[in-house]
Amino acid sequence: MSKHELRGIFTPNLVPLDNRGQINEAELRRYVDWLIDRGVHGLYPNGSTGEFTRFQPEERRRIIKIVCEQVGGRVPVLAGAAEANVAETIRACEVYHEYGARAVAIVSPFYYRLSPESVYTYFHEIAQHSPIDVTLYNIPMFASPIDVPTLRRLAEHPRIVGIKDSSGDVAFMGRMINAVRPVRPDFRFLTGWEAVLVPMLIMGADGGTNATSGIVPELTRNLYELTQARRIDEAVKLQLRLIELFDTMLYSADFPEGFRAAVDLRGFDFGRGRQPLSEAQQVDRAALQRVLHCIIADFGVMDGPCEGCAVRTGNLEHDKIEQVTRAVLAEIQERGIRVN
Amino acid sequence: MSKHELRGIFTPNLVPLDNRGQINEAELRRYVDWLIDRGVHGLYPNGSTGEFTRFQPEERRRIIKIVCEQVGGRVPVLAGAAEANVAETIRACEVYHEYGARAVAIVSPFYYRLSPESVYTYFHEIAQHSPIDVTLYNIPMFASPIDVPTLRRLAEHPRIVGIKDSSGDVAFMGRMINAVRPVRPDFRFLTGWEAVLVPMLIMGADGGTNATSGIVPELTRNLYELTQARRIDEAVKLQLRLIELFDTMLYSADFPEGFRAAVDLRGFDFGRGRQPLSEAQQVDRAALQRVLHCIIADFGVMDGPCEGCAVRTGNLEHDKIEQVTRAVLAEIQERGIRVN
Amino acid sequence: MSKHELRGIFTPNLVPLDNRGQINEAELRRYVDWLIDRGVHGLYPNGSTGEFTRFQPEERRRIIKIVCEQVGGRVPVLAGAAEANVAETIRACEVYHEYGARAVAIVSPFYYRLSPESVYTYFHEIAQHSPIDVTLYNIPMFASPIDVPTLRRLAEHPRIVGIKDSSGDVAFMGRMINAVRPVRPDFRFLTGWEAVLVPMLIMGADGGTNATSGIVPELTRNLYELTQARRIDEAVKLQLRLIELFDTMLYSADFPEGFRAAVDLRGFDFGRGRQPLSEAQQVDRAALQRVLHCIIADFGVMDGPCEGCAVRTGNLEHDKIEQVTRAVLAEIQERGIRVN
Amino acid sequence: MSKHELRGIFTPNLVPLDNRGQINEAELRRYVDWLIDRGVHGLYPNGSTGEFTRFQPEERRRIIKIVCEQVGGRVPVLAGAAEANVAETIRACEVYHEYGARAVAIVSPFYYRLSPESVYTYFHEIAQHSPIDVTLYNIPMFASPIDVPTLRRLAEHPRIVGIKDSSGDVAFMGRMINAVRPVRPDFRFLTGWEAVLVPMLIMGADGGTNATSGIVPELTRNLYELTQARRIDEAVKLQLRLIELFDTMLYSADFPEGFRAAVDLRGFDFGRGRQPLSEAQQVDRAALQRVLHCIIADFGVMDGPCEGCAVRTGNLEHDKIEQVTRAVLAEIQERGIRVN
Repeated sequence: MSKHELRGIFTPNLVPLDNRGQINEAELRRYVDWLIDRGVHGLYPNGSTGEFTRFQPEERRRIIKIVCEQVGGRVPVLAGAAEANVAETIRACEVYHEYGARAVAIVSPFYYRLSPESVYTYFHEIAQHSPIDVTLYNIPMFASPIDVPTLRRLAEHPRIVGIKDSSGDVAFMGRMINAVRPVRPDFRFLTGWEAVLVPMLIMGADGGTNATSGIVPELTRNLYELTQARRIDEAVKLQLRLIELFDTMLYSADFPEGFRAAVDLRGFDFGRGRQPLSEAQQVDRAALQRVLHCIIADFGVMDGPCEGCAVRTGNLEHDKIEQVTRAVLAEIQERGIRVN
Repeated sequence: MSKHELRGIFTPNLVPLDNRGQINEAELRRYVDWLIDRGVHGLYPNGSTGEFTRFQPEERRRIIKIVCEQVGGRVPVLAGAAEANVAETIRACEVYHEYGARAVAIVSPFYYRLSPESVYTYFHEIAQHSPIDVTLYNIPMFASPIDVPTLRRLAEHPRIVGIKDSSGDVAFMGRMINAVRPVRPDFRFLTGWEAVLVPMLIMGADGGTNATSGIVPELTRNLYELTQARRIDEAVKLQLRLIELFDTMLYSADFPEGFRAAVDLRGFDFGRGRQPLSEAQQVDRAALQRVLHCIIADFGVMDGPCEGCAVRTGNLEHDKIEQVTRAVLAEIQERGIRVN
Repeated sequence: MSKHELRGIFTPNLVPLDNRGQINEAELRRYVDWLIDRGVHGLYPNGSTGEFTRFQPEERRRIIKIVCEQVGGRVPVLAGAAEANVAETIRACEVYHEYGARAVAIVSPFYYRLSPESVYTYFHEIAQHSPIDVTLYNIPMFASPIDVPTLRRLAEHPRIVGIKDSSGDVAFMGRMINAVRPVRPDFRFLTGWEAVLVPMLIMGADGGTNATSGIVPELTRNLYELTQARRIDEAVKLQLRLIELFDTMLYSADFPEGFRAAVDLRGFDFGRGRQPLSEAQQVDRAALQRVLHCIIADFGVMDGPCEGCAVRTGNLEHDKIEQVTRAVLAEIQERGIRVN
Repeated sequence: MSKHELRGIFTPNLVPLDNRGQINEAELRRYVDWLIDRGVHGLYPNGSTGEFTRFQPEERRRIIKIVCEQVGGRVPVLAGAAEANVAETIRACEVYHEYGARAVAIVSPFYYRLSPESVYTYFHEIAQHSPIDVTLYNIPMFASPIDVPTLRRLAEHPRIVGIKDSSGDVAFMGRMINAVRPVRPDFRFLTGWEAVLVPMLIMGADGGTNATSGIVPELTRNLYELTQARRIDEAVKLQLRLIELFDTMLYSADFPEGFRAAVDLRGFDFGRGRQPLSEAQQVDRAALQRVLHCIIADFGVMDGPCEGCAVRTGNLEHDKIEQVTRAVLAEIQERGIRVN
């Protein structure tokens, strides 16, 4: 695949922080290399997974700069460029173009819920002035929805080259493809919902920007290739297992804390996030990590915990208790305490 | 496929009414034969498509009786059996068992939105007393949702043999399969959302109960078989086209009036529905029929309208206007009026 | 107030069941007398509180018959008349007219979510043929919403005389009044959301149909009269306390089980409801009754539990535990067991 | 009322922009004086109405600086202080404290929908470090909801002195008051939903932060005083009329463009907003201004349009057409063209 293609799996990368809560540049560079080595097709900094709203404007620029530099053209970079308003967003497009990003991704206006006409006008205005290709970013649970008629209108603009959709609605993917492909066969469709990555790809999506690929890039790459090769039954088998991992990271903590908890298991130190955790949440996070360790180890990409893994039931509360109990028992045993 | 298997495409059949608004038995029997001849794997009377809530209890029984008689064992009948309360529902199960239905489908309690514990208790109580296999019916847009933990608990009851899910959420299908298949490999999963029939089947669903199969049974059968044969690219091509038909029937009128408008095009007289239409709605319905005629004819299962079809754009309002204009012009021409 | 006026507090009465799950006629008659004696302005059988969907059509008729007979013209009866379709609903209107009901209340079509045009057509068709005054019933959490433009259109029909709104949205009440009063000064507005009964009355509503009035009719009557007399500060003080009772009955069990649990405390035997309760739910119900007993006793309308009441904190989980603990201790003490 | 009291009507002021899209300082200062002269009890810059998300961090500071300076202690300033993360928000609190703001208002975390525990932790962390009193800002349609148990926990922190709630739910206001007043009698409750300003005040709210007060400060002040004086019937009469104005500004354009369109009618030049308008939207805005002109003039706070006002029906689409037609006819007449 060409290094300029917006196809395949793009990682919406998390941002490591140091113990002062600032961007940990060294760790970010190491993470970029690790991801590329494990086969991701591209990087997508300043996405929702990358907590773009929790950084200051200058920090967002620094993240793109570091990532573009470190990537060094090995894979395309899709740079999240949404800023406070149209003028600032266009300025970010200009800067990211200079940094060498392949394209920008711009989330639909958020906080206020805008009408389709306003969503259209917003993106159209940006596209008119952007020196770099623009992909739309639809995430209706967080931002103003981009509906199919609005997408079709926007797809008429040559600067707009694709859409990243995080609705998770496979029928909606079909509707977008039906509406746009006949008039723009080159338009790219990426899904942000890896729980249905295989179905989306089969329906015609070109790839995904999937937080899970930042944790187990080997597996999302594998999923993509199996599907492309139409080894459907193998792909679905893996897809079904990946749902468990995805759900555990997504629903066991406020997004994206579950993913932050997971990435550390792969040998990184991402530090504490910018949304503070209560003591109860920190305990939950540690318990969650034990379960995640077992789930990820099961895929064969890393070793499991020393104390072994309890049988998983899919009932997360139950699984956490079992797993933590096992860890405590291992600890006790190690210390030579006899338990009756 | 065995005539007892809850697999493949089941038609949630519409009910034809005569000009007094009563069940048109002759037309219903003719419709049942037509569907079986065109290859549906089973019938599902008294579903949402069959407007079960708009009939009186004795009418619902009559519908099942007619359908079971007419089917005569050629295909399995899945009988919608939800009544006002648990006792009445169990009574309906008994009656439908005598009529020879293969299983009943029971929608989750509606009107009141019940908690998972209440949903569980409701279905468990019915399963305890039903002489016939029970399939759960999950349709969260209309009824209390059945969540995955509740499904898992219910799947422990041997009388409960499957679920029909109309959420349209492919990831949810994956979650249900993950939770239930390991403990109940025989449990059946049917989707009610044909906009994603292929993705659902690929994910592991056993079939569907799809209103569209009551209109174009040839196509949904084909879709099913192509998918089973893993001729994925052909299947998806057809799937994408079917979305247009499905959306047009679903979103152009209050459900299921768009499907009622469509079935008449296949040579039936289903009469006026029980939900009255205003004059404006009747005009809209006629215009909708013209568009549907063109869409269905495009699939090659019937002839198109005499006056030909305008090019479709996917913008339904626009397409309707074009198509109606064309019909008016044809009418004018036929009457020998000259238009400048 | 005239016995024909649709003003004041109407009780959407619960239906007592005997130990076979059938309508307990004697208890229902006793309950009707009790409510009238305690000052409710009218009765509203077959409402959501009365679980109309859980009865068979003939049972719904019997309920209205019993209530109309027992009321004997002392207060107006607003009879819930929604049946499976327009024809059956009109038939119910005819029957309830003969029974002597003052008006019928018809819930907007449910299960299917209908468009405003369909909601209009539905009610208009009924109004055209009903021999008895019709009040609309808007409960958007359970049924198709009635929006303001649709209400305005329907208010042009002389047979439609009011609306009962359970949205709980005070601004919406204002909008309805703004839209309808200028053209129909006699149109009646009733609220089904007693958490804001005082604000609704102040905004211009004529009364309410409030489940809480079936439990503490003395208090809702008092609330109504204080507000009418513009003794606002006293009214609000009582309103704020009533929210606690309302919330506890509404949110501690699936509606209307919390109200069923409460009515028994007033000296009735309403039996087990038709929606079965799991064992866990039965335990919860008993605990809920203890808390409700304390809340209701605090209003001075009945004695508190023998063992006294724990201090309430508004944290229901916590209050339940405290109250149940107290009851257990009282039980232990009574039995002469010493606790260290 | 003391100049330090968080009571009465606070104006969440819009921000005027010059023709380069930058903050129009002179107009902002003139607007602040105009508002104070017309009786608002306080100002609330950087609220949702003030489009805080569409400004850069340094612009938000400049807005507060200008407003605090211009107010000069005449009324209290409630400064919107939400920034990208906890650390930045605390820094803003420090700066606004120096500027002389009375308190800050901090919207619940947005974009991501956080759990109650995270909402608590977020606000608690800020309160721990803020040198200035904090009011919480609950606006569930745009940001993570603050529920009653979370509010109760947060009200234990002395630095947190109030909540501004834009849910518009009067029962929720009652619940908050029930939960907090007994333990924190000094805690302040402000409503952001002026469609129910009178009911909210009656229920016990201390005031409001209402966008409408930026357009007709005379009226919201009047509404407040009538309610405080318990001249309820006069207050409600005015409240009902105010709903029409509020709804027209709120629902006829994407928020807050309808308010921007209205403020210019009061003699200001607020320029074009930062969210671009399509040509169709600009035409709609002009038509909306005609209707707003008539509604506002009806209150007697300004003259109506030269060409007079068409009768309003409450059907906005219809009213716009009538009003614009009238304006066109007046224009034609003025130009001496004869129309038959």
